Amino acid sequence: MAIHPVIMCGGAGTRLWPVSNQACPKQFHRLVSDKSVFQETVLRFHHQPGFHPEPVIISNAAYAGLIAEQLAAIGVTPGAVLLEPEGRNTAAVAAVAARHLAALDATALGLLVPSDHFIGQPETFTDAVREAGIAAAEGYITTFGIAPDRPETGFGYIQSGERLSGKLQRVAAFKEKPDSATAAEYLASGRYSWNAGIFLFRPETMLTELGHFAPGVLDGATRALAAARTDGANIYLDPAAFAMTPSISVDYAVMEHTAHAAVLAPLDCAWNDIGTWTAVGDVSSRPNCPAAIEIDTSGCLVHAREGQLVALVGVEDLIVVADGNRILITRKDRAQDVGAVVKALKESGQKDYL
Amino acid sequence: MAIHPVIMCGGAGTRLWPVSNQACPKQFHRLVSDKSVFQETVLRFHHQPGFHPEPVIISNAAYAGLIAEQLAAIGVTPGAVLLEPEGRNTAAVAAVAARHLAALDATALGLLVPSDHFIGQPETFTDAVREAGIAAAEGYITTFGIAPDRPETGFGYIQSGERLSGKLQRVAAFKEKPDSATAAEYLASGRYSWNAGIFLFRPETMLTELGHFAPGVLDGATRALAAARTDGANIYLDPAAFAMTPSISVDYAVMEHTAHAAVLAPLDCAWNDIGTWTAVGDVSSRPNCPAAIEIDTSGCLVHAREGQLVALVGVEDLIVVADGNRILITRKDRAQDVGAVVKALKESGQKDYL
Repeated sequence: MAIHPVIMCGGAGTRLWPVSNQACPKQFHRLVSDKSVFQETVLRFHHQPGFHPEPVIISNAAYAGLIAEQLAAIGVTPGAVLLEPEGRNTAAVAAVAARHLAALDATALGLLVPSDHFIGQPETFTDAVREAGIAAAEGYITTFGIAPDRPETGFGYIQSGERLSGKLQRVAAFKEKPDSATAAEYLASGRYSWNAGIFLFRPETMLTELGHFAPGVLDGATRALAAARTDGANIYLDPAAFAMTPSISVDYAVMEHTAHAAVLAPLDCAWNDIGTWTAVGDVSSRPNCPAAIEIDTSGCLVHAREGQLVALVGVEDLIVVADGNRILITRKDRAQDVGAVVKALKESGQKDYL
Repeated sequence: MAIHPVIMCGGAGTRLWPVSNQACPKQFHRLVSDKSVFQETVLRFHHQPGFHPEPVIISNAAYAGLIAEQLAAIGVTPGAVLLEPEGRNTAAVAAVAARHLAALDATALGLLVPSDHFIGQPETFTDAVREAGIAAAEGYITTFGIAPDRPETGFGYIQSGERLSGKLQRVAAFKEKPDSATAAEYLASGRYSWNAGIFLFRPETMLTELGHFAPGVLDGATRALAAARTDGANIYLDPAAFAMTPSISVDYAVMEHTAHAAVLAPLDCAWNDIGTWTAVGDVSSRPNCPAAIEIDTSGCLVHAREGQLVALVGVEDLIVVADGNRILITRKDRAQDVGAVVKALKESGQKDYL
C-alpha cells in the first residue's frame, strides 16, 4: 500500500514576479535553497519509507521540458508525467490522478500535493502523511490542517469534527478565507487549521466521490486520459476531452460535499506557502547574495541573479528582486500586491517584462 | 576679446555610482537630458555672442576617445583638447589653460568651467559671464557666486566685498565648507554666495598670479605643455613634467591670496552641482523611464538603462538606479552616502562592479 506522491506543478502565480512568470513559474526556481521548490517537493518523499519511489507529476504540457530536466538533475525517475493541455483546476487533476493510480495499483494511496510550498520539518510532514494513511485506507479523503500561528486571512480553514484516532478527525466544515475578526476567532478556538491543499486518498474513494458530486469532471478526465498520447514517461491528456472538463477545485467539487472528509490536525511542520517575497525571505536558506552591499541597512531581502549586484544605502524592510532586466522594489508589508505589477504590464502591453 | 570656454572634464566622483565610474564618469552620461552633462556644458556657450566657437577641453588622457566622440555627436570642433596623464588638481589646469590661451590670443579671456554641473537658465549664466568679462579685462580673476537658497554645508562660500559695478564685487574672503550654524548665518547675511568653481580671467593675469603664489605649479604646467605631444586636436601633456607639478586647487593656490579676485554675485541661474542622485532627480528633464511601473508609489527617482524595467510597489522617496548588473537603492535623504558603496566594493575587491 505505497503512497504515491502526485505532485501538482502546473500553476503560475504573479506575486513572485519578476522571477516567477508564465514561462518558468515559482516552483521551478531556486527560491529558498540550492534546489528548485519543485525539486525540494519531489525529494521530500523520495526513498522515504512508505512512499513510492517514482512520483507522479501532473502539470501543464508547457513545462514538460522543465520537469524532465529538473527531475534528471536530482536523479529521480517519474512514474508518470501527466500533462494537461490547459489548466482545468484541481478537481480535474484529482480525477486524472485517481484514474491513473487506480489502473496502476489497486491498493495505492494517492497524495495530491502542491509543488510550490515550503516545509521546514519534512520528517514531521512525512510522518503525518503515513499516519493519515490509516484514515485514507479506510475510505476517507484526508486533508492536512496546518497549525495556525496567526489570524491569517489569506488561507481557507478546516474545522475539525469528531476524532477518529490520534490527530485524525472528521472534517466538520471547510471555511473560505475569513475576514480578520473571524480569523481571530478561528485562531482562539483551537478547532481550526489552515487548509494546505494536500489530499491523501484511495483512488477508488476519489473516483467514487467525483462520480457522485462532479460526474462531469470525472467523465472529462477519464476520456482525456483514455485518449492520451504517451511519449516515454510523458502522458499528454487529450485536448478535446480535457477542454470539455469543468474547471472547479477539488474543495468545491468534492470536499465540501463528501461524508468521507478527514483532516490530520494540527500539523506543525513549519509549512509556508511562500506566496510572497516576504514569505520567501522568512524561510530562505539560500546563501546571502554574494554580490550585495548593505550600508546602514536592515531587514531587507535581496534576491538577485548571479552576476547582479544590489547595493542598499540607508533603507529598511525592503524587498529587492533583480532578475536580469526586470527589477522589483517593494516593502515587506506590501509584497502581497506585487501581482499588480504583472497586471499593469499586461494592460500596457509590455509583455517582454512578464 | 572672445571668451574661450575651457571645459574641465577629468574628474570622477563616486556618489553617482553605478552610472558614474572611473571608466565613464558622470559628465559623460545623459543624466538629466538626452545629451551628456559634458555636451550640455559645451553647448551652453556654443555660438553664443562673445564666446569663441571652439572650446578648449581639458581632461584626463583616458577620456580622449569619449571627448572626441561626444563632441562629434553635437557637431562641435574643439580649439584644443588638453590631456593630462594624471589629475593634478585645478591650479595645474588653470596654468595649462592660461599658457595655452596666452599663446593663442593675447586678448582672449579664459573661462575655466566644470563640465559636470547643471544650469537651468543658461542665458542668465552666459549674460553673467559677459558681464564678468568687464572685470576680467581689467585684470581681475572673476568668480561666480551662486545665490544660495538654503544653508548648504556641502559647498564653499564667497564673501562679497567692495562693489566694482553692477553685480561685480571684490572678494572679501573665500570660506571653506561651513558647519550648519555658520551656513545659516551666511544665508541670513545676504553677503555670501556659493563658490561654483568657475573662473574668468585674462591668461596673463592668471599666469602672473600663479607666478607669484604658485611658481611650482606654473613651472610644471609650462614645461608639461612645452614638451607636449600633439595629435590632431589632442595635446598630450608631458607626463614627466606634469608629474612634478604640485597638486593644489586654484582656490588655495591663487584665489585666497590674490588681490585681484572679483565675484559676480548673486548669480541666480538655476545652478545645480548634480552631486547626488537626489540632485539629479531634482533637475532631470529626461523623459520618465519608459519601463517603470509604479504602484502606490510616490516621490521616487528611477534611473535605468534602456531595456531595464523597474517596478515599485508601495514605496516612497527612494532612488533606484539600474545600470545593467549593478543596482542601487537608497533613500533621497541618504544619496550623499552612495560613495560608501564604491568604498566597500574597492575594499572587498569586487572591482567588476565599480
